[in-house]
Amino acid sequence: MEALASYKAQLREIGKLDSAISLLHWDQRTGLPRKGQDARAEVIGALSKRQFEMATSDELGATLEALEARDDLSCEEAASVRVVGREYRRHKAVPPDFYERFAVASSRSEAAWERARAASDFAAFKGHLEEMVDFARRFAAYYGYEESPYDALIEEYEPGMTSRRLAAIVAPLREKLVPFIERLTEAGAAPDAQFLQSPFPMQAQRALSLRALRAIGYDFEAGRLDTTVHPFTITAGPGDVRVTTRFLEDDPLSGLFSSLHEGGHALYDQGIPDRLTWTGLDQGASFGIHESQSRMWENLVGRSRAFWTYFAPHFAEAYPAARGVSSEALYRAANRVTPSFIRVEADEVTYNLHIMLRFELEQGLISGETSVGDLPDLWRDAMERYLGVVPEDDAQGVLQDVHWSAGMFGYFPSYMLGNLYGAQLFAAIREALPDLDEQFARGDFSELLSWLREHVHRVGRAEDPGMLIERVTGKPLDPEYFLDYITGKFSDVYGL
Amino acid sequence: MEALASYKAQLREIGKLDSAISLLHWDQRTGLPRKGQDARAEVIGALSKRQFEMATSDELGATLEALEARDDLSCEEAASVRVVGREYRRHKAVPPDFYERFAVASSRSEAAWERARAASDFAAFKGHLEEMVDFARRFAAYYGYEESPYDALIEEYEPGMTSRRLAAIVAPLREKLVPFIERLTEAGAAPDAQFLQSPFPMQAQRALSLRALRAIGYDFEAGRLDTTVHPFTITAGPGDVRVTTRFLEDDPLSGLFSSLHEGGHALYDQGIPDRLTWTGLDQGASFGIHESQSRMWENLVGRSRAFWTYFAPHFAEAYPAARGVSSEALYRAANRVTPSFIRVEADEVTYNLHIMLRFELEQGLISGETSVGDLPDLWRDAMERYLGVVPEDDAQGVLQDVHWSAGMFGYFPSYMLGNLYGAQLFAAIREALPDLDEQFARGDFSELLSWLREHVHRVGRAEDPGMLIERVTGKPLDPEYFLDYITGKFSDVYGL
Repeated sequence: MEALASYKAQLREIGKLDSAISLLHWDQRTGLPRKGQDARAEVIGALSKRQFEMATSDELGATLEALEARDDLSCEEAASVRVVGREYRRHKAVPPDFYERFAVASSRSEAAWERARAASDFAAFKGHLEEMVDFARRFAAYYGYEESPYDALIEEYEPGMTSRRLAAIVAPLREKLVPFIERLTEAGAAPDAQFLQSPFPMQAQRALSLRALRAIGYDFEAGRLDTTVHPFTITAGPGDVRVTTRFLEDDPLSGLFSSLHEGGHALYDQGIPDRLTWTGLDQGASFGIHESQSRMWENLVGRSRAFWTYFAPHFAEAYPAARGVSSEALYRAANRVTPSFIRVEADEVTYNLHIMLRFELEQGLISGETSVGDLPDLWRDAMERYLGVVPEDDAQGVLQDVHWSAGMFGYFPSYMLGNLYGAQLFAAIREALPDLDEQFARGDFSELLSWLREHVHRVGRAEDPGMLIERVTGKPLDPEYFLDYITGKFSDVYGL
Repeated sequence: MEALASYKAQLREIGKLDSAISLLHWDQRTGLPRKGQDARAEVIGALSKRQFEMATSDELGATLEALEARDDLSCEEAASVRVVGREYRRHKAVPPDFYERFAVASSRSEAAWERARAASDFAAFKGHLEEMVDFARRFAAYYGYEESPYDALIEEYEPGMTSRRLAAIVAPLREKLVPFIERLTEAGAAPDAQFLQSPFPMQAQRALSLRALRAIGYDFEAGRLDTTVHPFTITAGPGDVRVTTRFLEDDPLSGLFSSLHEGGHALYDQGIPDRLTWTGLDQGASFGIHESQSRMWENLVGRSRAFWTYFAPHFAEAYPAARGVSSEALYRAANRVTPSFIRVEADEVTYNLHIMLRFELEQGLISGETSVGDLPDLWRDAMERYLGVVPEDDAQGVLQDVHWSAGMFGYFPSYMLGNLYGAQLFAAIREALPDLDEQFARGDFSELLSWLREHVHRVGRAEDPGMLIERVTGKPLDPEYFLDYITGKFSDVYGL
């Protein structure tokens, strides 16, 4: 077969296997009965192994080489070869048996972490974490890097990002956020959320989330909403982007915002054009850009005053305790700021500080300056510096996240970058669509979605995040947009 | 690797792929969004192709040959080699490109059938059906047979069964059933079902089905209940046997019996021992034996007087219209006999006649004595002879079933055999457990399930159906058990 046709055929076969694996994962986390868990892990393992063999085959390598030498490829074909070739070389740089040892060790480590977190027993996890750090450093050595081994790791999640650039972003952000939070909590007037104390039955919450997802343009003919423990969005195949969420009976807003967050991820994936299916380009530009979409729909849209002008009557209809509460009061209640221990529960203002803390610590772990045994103390110290609160135990501290236990170092910054990309994109959108608030207030989100489709979604992974943000906003990533948004909004909410 | 170890490893890999394909199918028929359908077909196609390659590989052939020559295998290992070897040779007898052409043609034919049925337009389907008959005859030639090409086809569903044996079973059955039905409808007192006219909300029906499934011993930790259009049961993996059903708001019993039917299939699969997982033996002995389990739980249990003694209060609790109705009246209402056009809606007494009709026609098609163009007339004629009713159009006649459109000839007799096996097994069970009715009446089905586990389920596919029925009941299949059961029960219900 001709090289380009062979290349496309190979990617399609890899893509089909990917789709099958995604469905197996989705089911594992939504509906799989308990007694089917062990065998499911084996089924996923077998398909993943096969997928890895195909994605690292000599045949694919030869095809990539042939195509890299050609100059008659279309723009998207060339992007596919670039993106797929980059991954191919990363994978080929690592000996297969090293991968296998890592797979075994990381699943053991994750299980140990689960037990350790439940018992708040860092010592029981320490050995596993040391092993994971060691694996990560060796992965970095295999992948290669220019300046710092951490750069080789973050490349997986945010192509083109480096720890030097991250540090330059973090410094001004931290410098302004920390005192702003102090002012908010000390001098600000915290919104009242008393009326959110009444329980909210799951079925009614689900109906409300369905309404919100429909309003923002999520296509239920190409997806579905299910519940799970840790919400996620997954493309189970072309035309099939599934959202999951979690409803808490005693928290009337948590499930709604989780649905909007995952809905934001899903709108991105549903917006990737059909012609990119199974080409290696049918996903987001990076984890950070993906997070910009979820955080935008959750926060910049869902926690905006205009959104609540539209949504308050629907909310009150579903949740009788909110009847008679003004949309302004609901808006304010959805925007309380509280320095707290747990990242996933953090508000818009404090969230990035949780990330900076992790960035600081994992950089030290990978560079070798920080030893695993010191982590609990370092965590408490950093919490005090960043947020002014100190958790009482490690379950609420260093043991709270799954990422490190699974060997995922370099992942956390994506969350912060998502917030920054989101704010920068939204500033551009506000210029392009000056009456956005009026649209939101009447429940119309279609122009925002169209704008995102046209400027962000349609390119899939054909552009790296740095290229994308500069093309769309005219500037490289700049944390000032986020700072302007946050200080403006919350000074108002808190009456500063 | 040593031959036996290599054999087991190959079967495990094939089994894992099977599990993945099963989940993709389950999802396709329960939750897959519309826009994901096309790609899903491609994903299933890719995995099935790979599975077929593994199941027909020269490596597997060589291993089978090596093991067939050995006499040191355990009983189950030998059974696995026998069953897997038989399938291997059937598949190898067919040229791969013939399979591929069949796969394309049958999916086209199924789609054409769906349209033709909706329009009740046999002419639009005729060409496809002719093609399917031609494929089936050529499959039979590839597979080989001793007496009749139809035997080669039924072997797929009911190993060891032949058209000659089937004809010998059908003749006495038909001879007694046809006049019995006439007597019932003419001289019998039809049960009153007036009180079942009130609508029954889906949620309440679902809760009732969950209760019934729990009562009969279905393990929800190793399965789940979902709704679909055409109910089915599927093993989505070890420890994961899923039931689906369909609720009709205006038919308070249909969904319940569908759940019990599928629950019967599921109890069989849940009862197959773990040690048979991914050995080729981890399924039922045949389609007929499988159907014996589903029909037993649906009819011999679910439509029994003793069952309704137990279940009437639960039914009335869920369905207010049945309050004050006696358990005897409910039992009788669940056992109305009506000669009708549609097989899947047929009662216990008339059901087998629908099958005999199809057996007669498909035998003629495969032998070449019957031409496709004559089918609509032949169908009407046979309906008159067997059931005394004639459908007004082909949608309610020859176009009602999917099987032929998908090239599945030789499948229908399994349904009838299921009824016969079930009655014969149940007669043996009644002898072994004389107080079965008292147990059912207090909602205890555990001894029945234990008996089935021990005598039927535990062997999986290690025994052919003929061997199984003889071992368990001491006699080869004999339709008299079914006739005794049916005439006894319905003479009573209809007061003959």
